[in-house]
Amino acid sequence: MAEGEFDLIRRLFAPLAAREPGAFGLEDDVAVLLDTDFVVTKDLLVAGVHFPDTERRDVVARKALRVNLSDLAAKGAKPFGYFLGCVWPSDAQYAEIAAFADGLKKDQDAFRCALLGGDTTRHGAAGAPLTVSVTMVGLGPRDGVLRRNGAKPGDDIYVTGTIGDAGLGLMAAQGEARFPTEDGGALLDRLQLPSPRLAFGGALAGVGRAAIDVSDGLLADAGHIAEMSGVAIDVDAARIPLSSPAARWRDAQDDAAAATGFLATAGDDYEILFAAPPERRRAVEMARQVTKTQVTKIGVARSGRGVRLLSETGSEVAASRAGYDHFGEN
Amino acid sequence: MAEGEFDLIRRLFAPLAAREPGAFGLEDDVAVLLDTDFVVTKDLLVAGVHFPDTERRDVVARKALRVNLSDLAAKGAKPFGYFLGCVWPSDAQYAEIAAFADGLKKDQDAFRCALLGGDTTRHGAAGAPLTVSVTMVGLGPRDGVLRRNGAKPGDDIYVTGTIGDAGLGLMAAQGEARFPTEDGGALLDRLQLPSPRLAFGGALAGVGRAAIDVSDGLLADAGHIAEMSGVAIDVDAARIPLSSPAARWRDAQDDAAAATGFLATAGDDYEILFAAPPERRRAVEMARQVTKTQVTKIGVARSGRGVRLLSETGSEVAASRAGYDHFGEN
Repeated sequence: MAEGEFDLIRRLFAPLAAREPGAFGLEDDVAVLLDTDFVVTKDLLVAGVHFPDTERRDVVARKALRVNLSDLAAKGAKPFGYFLGCVWPSDAQYAEIAAFADGLKKDQDAFRCALLGGDTTRHGAAGAPLTVSVTMVGLGPRDGVLRRNGAKPGDDIYVTGTIGDAGLGLMAAQGEARFPTEDGGALLDRLQLPSPRLAFGGALAGVGRAAIDVSDGLLADAGHIAEMSGVAIDVDAARIPLSSPAARWRDAQDDAAAATGFLATAGDDYEILFAAPPERRRAVEMARQVTKTQVTKIGVARSGRGVRLLSETGSEVAASRAGYDHFGEN
Repeated sequence: MAEGEFDLIRRLFAPLAAREPGAFGLEDDVAVLLDTDFVVTKDLLVAGVHFPDTERRDVVARKALRVNLSDLAAKGAKPFGYFLGCVWPSDAQYAEIAAFADGLKKDQDAFRCALLGGDTTRHGAAGAPLTVSVTMVGLGPRDGVLRRNGAKPGDDIYVTGTIGDAGLGLMAAQGEARFPTEDGGALLDRLQLPSPRLAFGGALAGVGRAAIDVSDGLLADAGHIAEMSGVAIDVDAARIPLSSPAARWRDAQDDAAAATGFLATAGDDYEILFAAPPERRRAVEMARQVTKTQVTKIGVARSGRGVRLLSETGSEVAASRAGYDHFGEN
């Protein structure tokens, strides 16, 4: 989400949600339907913005489900079903739409949810972009969803999986960087088909104090937790977990610190970033083991505001991207 | 919805909903969330398809809410809240988005629902159309929602309000027909801001046996009830309720029967078409009086298939439009 959109949401749309406590003031990734376990999230994907228009339609369908499933995962909710809205180019062929439906089937079987309803239409003008709107309904954890606003000074900050792969995958797709063939393929996979951390998110309920899925970028999303929780977050650059392809890419760059800054701001990782108090380290470790998920402590929350990316010597690493700049106010 | 889309939904998407009974096989306008009173519907509006790109943005916002509220109304559900997805043209200005938010505020206050969450993004290319996706959540009636599939032979067929105004409004907007100034304004109002029949829909629960909101056109939507209920429906052309402007327009046409056929297939009426058994005529009359809603008996359901539009002499009136043709198989 671009910087301007946060502002629009705050100024124009958050007031429209004021009456309904389950909407969390539009400050979280999900809403809960009052007096039920239903947790709902909605993410749009638009050709030319969130995926290249040439992307295989089954892959588009699967990504549309997965980015929404990732929101549920970070909140500890289980998939239940989804509503689908598609606007197809006026000249879309049956085979293209059938491929899209195949992708939905594959992933709704994999993640155990069903199509509940929706709307299908076509653009009036040729060349207008395929637009996919998914409203995903999940069943929340008994302890309540993990909000963005629960982190406290002293909390450990963790992230699942590895960071920056999708950003490098995008560079590969756009021909902006070259990778060894296998690395390029692995990175592109991360961009096209993120893996929502549903099992770990479920295990995190009652353990973590705040959580978010990393879509805007590690530091930007740390910024969302910091801002909503009223804390500062320090991230150790050296601890950010990198895949082998990403580590190889970083090591090949002239400026390793800037390269790490890029990976920490690239976005589309769909990992879970979360805060948990030190006394729950064993519980975090249990969740990690039970769900066989890579989990790395990457920093700490402290009193203050903003997010800092720190080098091994404790100095701040420059990492300039819009989403990060706004929240890194120290 | 164009004919091809029904087929796509049946062949490609309905199988994806098979596992979840609350999805009704995608054969109705809403889904219910199991073991709750929540009723959910989702309708998309796209510039250049559902509204002219020059339409005032507050009007677009209000129409987006109202077409979804109309789905709830026909099912006897009360508005609760909505999820909103917007894709703005890349050059959309703040004032434009603020006008849109104003329209939302006006109608969510009028219809008592709140924004619950959503996603806002921008198109990558200039000139791509504003797309608005609303997922509306309502609270269903205790007796269960009125499905499309409950009509029985012998049932009376009724419709609320007047039919064909929005279709004439579209002709006025596109300069395809000329109307006296006042008539043109009234017809255009019906096109831009339909009035969801929430009060009457609520009163109809437990009284009607099948219901649908008229969006595809009176005969096409009668066709949906006929097909899903396994009955035939005869509509008396002379009984179709017309507003004064629409009646004046029809009377000025050379072929009054063809004119009536046009009005009965034009769509976008957002009235409630429903079936009720003759023994509930008093209950229908009560619902009409209590909610001060115009309700007209326009036909009957009988054994058989398809929909016929009958003249006063009982002969069939030709009314050829795609949505109607497909279902009128007699």
